[in-house]
Amino acid sequence: MSSIVGNKLKLSIFGESHGNGIGAVIDGLPAGEEINYLELNEFLKRRSPGKKFTTKRVEKDEFEILSGVKKDYTTGSPLAVTFKNSDATSTDYEKIKNIPRPSHADYTANIKYKGYADLNGGGHFSGRLTAPMCFAGGIAKQILERKGIFIGAHLKSVGDIEDIDFKDIELSDEIFKSILNRELPILDLEAEKNAKNYLEEIQKEGNSIGAIVQCGVIGVKAGLGNPIFDGIENNIAKIMFGIPGVKGVSFGSGFESAKMKGSEHNDEFYFKDGIIRTYTNNSGGIQGGITNGMPIVVDVAIKPTASIFLEQNSVNLDTGENTKLKIMGRHDPCIGIRAVPVVESLVAFTLLDFII
Amino acid sequence: MSSIVGNKLKLSIFGESHGNGIGAVIDGLPAGEEINYLELNEFLKRRSPGKKFTTKRVEKDEFEILSGVKKDYTTGSPLAVTFKNSDATSTDYEKIKNIPRPSHADYTANIKYKGYADLNGGGHFSGRLTAPMCFAGGIAKQILERKGIFIGAHLKSVGDIEDIDFKDIELSDEIFKSILNRELPILDLEAEKNAKNYLEEIQKEGNSIGAIVQCGVIGVKAGLGNPIFDGIENNIAKIMFGIPGVKGVSFGSGFESAKMKGSEHNDEFYFKDGIIRTYTNNSGGIQGGITNGMPIVVDVAIKPTASIFLEQNSVNLDTGENTKLKIMGRHDPCIGIRAVPVVESLVAFTLLDFII
Amino acid sequence: MSSIVGNKLKLSIFGESHGNGIGAVIDGLPAGEEINYLELNEFLKRRSPGKKFTTKRVEKDEFEILSGVKKDYTTGSPLAVTFKNSDATSTDYEKIKNIPRPSHADYTANIKYKGYADLNGGGHFSGRLTAPMCFAGGIAKQILERKGIFIGAHLKSVGDIEDIDFKDIELSDEIFKSILNRELPILDLEAEKNAKNYLEEIQKEGNSIGAIVQCGVIGVKAGLGNPIFDGIENNIAKIMFGIPGVKGVSFGSGFESAKMKGSEHNDEFYFKDGIIRTYTNNSGGIQGGITNGMPIVVDVAIKPTASIFLEQNSVNLDTGENTKLKIMGRHDPCIGIRAVPVVESLVAFTLLDFII
Amino acid sequence: MSSIVGNKLKLSIFGESHGNGIGAVIDGLPAGEEINYLELNEFLKRRSPGKKFTTKRVEKDEFEILSGVKKDYTTGSPLAVTFKNSDATSTDYEKIKNIPRPSHADYTANIKYKGYADLNGGGHFSGRLTAPMCFAGGIAKQILERKGIFIGAHLKSVGDIEDIDFKDIELSDEIFKSILNRELPILDLEAEKNAKNYLEEIQKEGNSIGAIVQCGVIGVKAGLGNPIFDGIENNIAKIMFGIPGVKGVSFGSGFESAKMKGSEHNDEFYFKDGIIRTYTNNSGGIQGGITNGMPIVVDVAIKPTASIFLEQNSVNLDTGENTKLKIMGRHDPCIGIRAVPVVESLVAFTLLDFII
Repeated sequence: MSSIVGNKLKLSIFGESHGNGIGAVIDGLPAGEEINYLELNEFLKRRSPGKKFTTKRVEKDEFEILSGVKKDYTTGSPLAVTFKNSDATSTDYEKIKNIPRPSHADYTANIKYKGYADLNGGGHFSGRLTAPMCFAGGIAKQILERKGIFIGAHLKSVGDIEDIDFKDIELSDEIFKSILNRELPILDLEAEKNAKNYLEEIQKEGNSIGAIVQCGVIGVKAGLGNPIFDGIENNIAKIMFGIPGVKGVSFGSGFESAKMKGSEHNDEFYFKDGIIRTYTNNSGGIQGGITNGMPIVVDVAIKPTASIFLEQNSVNLDTGENTKLKIMGRHDPCIGIRAVPVVESLVAFTLLDFII
Repeated sequence: MSSIVGNKLKLSIFGESHGNGIGAVIDGLPAGEEINYLELNEFLKRRSPGKKFTTKRVEKDEFEILSGVKKDYTTGSPLAVTFKNSDATSTDYEKIKNIPRPSHADYTANIKYKGYADLNGGGHFSGRLTAPMCFAGGIAKQILERKGIFIGAHLKSVGDIEDIDFKDIELSDEIFKSILNRELPILDLEAEKNAKNYLEEIQKEGNSIGAIVQCGVIGVKAGLGNPIFDGIENNIAKIMFGIPGVKGVSFGSGFESAKMKGSEHNDEFYFKDGIIRTYTNNSGGIQGGITNGMPIVVDVAIKPTASIFLEQNSVNLDTGENTKLKIMGRHDPCIGIRAVPVVESLVAFTLLDFII
Repeated sequence: MSSIVGNKLKLSIFGESHGNGIGAVIDGLPAGEEINYLELNEFLKRRSPGKKFTTKRVEKDEFEILSGVKKDYTTGSPLAVTFKNSDATSTDYEKIKNIPRPSHADYTANIKYKGYADLNGGGHFSGRLTAPMCFAGGIAKQILERKGIFIGAHLKSVGDIEDIDFKDIELSDEIFKSILNRELPILDLEAEKNAKNYLEEIQKEGNSIGAIVQCGVIGVKAGLGNPIFDGIENNIAKIMFGIPGVKGVSFGSGFESAKMKGSEHNDEFYFKDGIIRTYTNNSGGIQGGITNGMPIVVDVAIKPTASIFLEQNSVNLDTGENTKLKIMGRHDPCIGIRAVPVVESLVAFTLLDFII
Repeated sequence: MSSIVGNKLKLSIFGESHGNGIGAVIDGLPAGEEINYLELNEFLKRRSPGKKFTTKRVEKDEFEILSGVKKDYTTGSPLAVTFKNSDATSTDYEKIKNIPRPSHADYTANIKYKGYADLNGGGHFSGRLTAPMCFAGGIAKQILERKGIFIGAHLKSVGDIEDIDFKDIELSDEIFKSILNRELPILDLEAEKNAKNYLEEIQKEGNSIGAIVQCGVIGVKAGLGNPIFDGIENNIAKIMFGIPGVKGVSFGSGFESAKMKGSEHNDEFYFKDGIIRTYTNNSGGIQGGITNGMPIVVDVAIKPTASIFLEQNSVNLDTGENTKLKIMGRHDPCIGIRAVPVVESLVAFTLLDFII
């Protein structure tokens, strides 16, 4: 097994970056759910390359739905979608085929698949595979919104530049929407400006930078999830490592919890208008794997883009010698930017799996 | 579903803290694996309460194997183990039944199970459930060691006190073993001393403190794992959130990656004695969900013990009023300490699932 | 993996016939379901040995619930149950250890588990493992009955003696209950008498005989199930082969369908009191994997008890020579009899998994 | 969930008969397996319509592989395949939309999917979905053959006409191949002739007839499979009910076992050329869920085509009245014929899942 996830609702992702096509099968969607294509396309555009700080490779991300939808409504049978690959020039890769790029999956895939993997452009490990993830997430978001559940994400940090923490503010769909108007998905305007300047520098350097994507969910009632191995956290963490470049997943105060005292970390309860709330949200909306009615807050650490333009050390798998490598081509200075809608998508998918 | 995890090798955890018994079923163990009971008991003791910085509740953790083992060898059929509960006084809990303890699962479990959950001592959400996890992990570790795979863990940090980072040193089984001789599972002697003093303070305060447990694995060959949703990271992350109090899981440089440039983060390759290695290990031994032959390094953020002796705000679920709460009883100042062998156990279990 | 089944509701079976104990973990039961122990014990007695046509081995089938139940109500966490083994004399088996008994799992288990399996009394392959299946089924039946769903089973045939076909009569809970008063689970009194006489003969011969267990379910609404690989039929068939001795599973007219014309087999629709029904029930209540509101009818072919008292040909695994074998001990002339409540149990469990 | 099956190797089937396309994702294939397209196409043709006793609907079954294969070798990443739908005239169905066809899934799908299902031509329940099953099976067969495992199937019976029973003869790949030269997949020439005549009659009548497809597997070593719920039988039975029209699955002597004595049914062992064999094969090659080295023999009961040209009773779901129905269009007199390669395919897929 490898590229299938979910319990009642399953997502099967397929495709290689430079193969005939990529896509997804979403199995278990309820029947009768309307698909708003306008919204879906808007959502998919957020992930698309071709913008200022994203690769110049132009993938139109035009999808074809093969099954599971009739006259804009889900039929209840598996929804299959394909994205054709275009603009796929494989020459870049072939030249360095036997010299694995540091911190890419070239080497590990080569070992695992005994040389048979199609690793052009990253193959099955490419960030391009996040397009069908966003397709699934875009639909999940629409279904959840009709149930009063709203999901948004932003760059909590880029390098040392920090945005406002979702955990510390009263979240709303308006806040989520306001992020969409920014050039970078950063809520604080000053931080956004700094990040733009910083990314331009990084780009000039031929370098890249990491980021934290933070996702918030409002409108989930208390009581959703399971203890031990099948909680909200387990399932979100599992799916999140499906995004290329993710190195950590945390909830609420996350790794900061490790430095906190119980008296600081504990989320004390109070009634507000008859509803139980907590003063703080260090739990990120989840206790014992089960939602407590407060916003779910997930942080996802994204490493810097592995492809950089600087010379790096590597090895020649054919000759068995150490060598130098310089990567050409196109790539984002910060893959964290395009990961924002992907994180939203996989959170949406996972929550829908718990709700249907 | 809730308390079952694994693919080919499955672990089913059952029990409530103050019920008749807790235990596990391990389904899928290969036949003919010897069980060294002496080692297993030593390992289980590392998790046991009753030591200086752990609760005074005396659980002997005596287990009974019901099936799956004959004359010290696994038979290949499911291994079932039970731990009888003893020293279970339920009076503490009954008194505060309708006043959920902050950052415990009392409130969320109450909603989910409509009042039917047995939440004495934490019920199914209790840290006590980590005993069968360690049983499974202790056996998995023995099997892995016979395959040349060694696993160790330590407290990477307690509050602001930091131990040596496994990522930055040449790991060995000797290092793993040396940690077992410490009073606290901390490699650096100075840090250990500081941590002991600090924990005594915390204890006097009636407070608690968070920690990061870091686990290292050596001896895993390159090529183990899968891309996208079924990689080493996905599966370790999923299972790890099964430990009560975990708020984050990361690999290699984890959340630090978010502040790093590609030129700092990329793990450049070189040959050493004919073997491919990387100069750094920011990837934590995994690229694209698949091992690269370097040590696997996992960080797990553990929140401070939710039970503290200080007065806290809560609500009375019966009257609908805000109220104050003071928790009595016994509890660890830092649950991170006892989480160390549990993290090892679940890493061992997950790797064994990939290997058999 | 091996002994776990189910989707949302999971059943994990463990134990070896002559080990310390056998049992089950039922994971995913809803909280707040009352357990009627009187009824449960009555149900378990139907499977118990010690009656006229069942083995003389006296297993009291006394169970201990370790978790998941508090004050007669399910708590929502995994329900673990154990049955201690008693009256387990292992001498019978040891004598013929290297001479596999024909049509038992001795040989195949020996190969698979490389000689490490505990095969005393059948080990993990023993019919004794159906006790925890019945425990799970007995609880599932109680929950289903509170939802208006009733399940009953009988011996549709023993050798050439045939009972009334459930498919051809108007089923009711009264009919299911009336079967419980019989000495053999056969509806037709004449057939029951003939079967008793026939079984006495078979027993005298030192031989055994096969049977068909037929199970009926009433009260399931139309629309339950899924197409293709996750329908009612797929899941019932899968679980049913978990009963030792099952060689076939069919629905409605089953293998008779192969001899029927479409004009005979098709279940034509009509309205009766505003409800859609079919004149015949050759579909066994399921079309396209989904219930149609008619009774579900499942047939399960049970082979004759493999243990017979007659001399048989076998091989000596140690010497590599052909040899003769004569089995001693205790065994049922027709395991189909005791399979009746097991079939009911696994049908109940599977349906509950679809409903919760 | 619904249309995904398998453990390590997963098959996800999607599509609706008259939608944009159908297809499959095969997740978990080993890398480096060659695909012989000539053989694959030959295999797929066996299922194709357009022959004498199969529907006149011309589906070319031309597939497009989107991923998972490069230069005729599997890459190890998910293999996605699509078949475009052509010749899909939806007029036939629209006319009778509210009058469910007896023994089709129209009614049950309508209830389950609340009227949103696309049921033109059977939709997701159509026999057309067996094309991607055969694609997956065709590849699985090629991989298995390279491991010395051969699979063949035939019509064991059509109505009352019976072919030779695979259980009773020494199977070989030659026998499997000889069936491919027949006009009908029947081994016995006399039986084949009778079946052809009989099918012509049935066709003239506007009627249909059931059949038993029997599948044999040679070359599987002893020791493959698992006890209880994850044996060879459980998994083959589960997947087999994914073929439209299947009403029963059995192994070896199947339902005949119910009439047999232990002394007749037991498969006695003997050594032949140092290999353990059984004189008879009533077990169908499986004991306790595990292979014993004898040929695996599976019988699958296929009901008569539900679409017949004779007038039938049905109901009008809109008006709530009883009505008459006459189905037009194209359909096979015996869907069992085209089920033959599908049964082979799903047996091959299931065995490969156990072996990789």
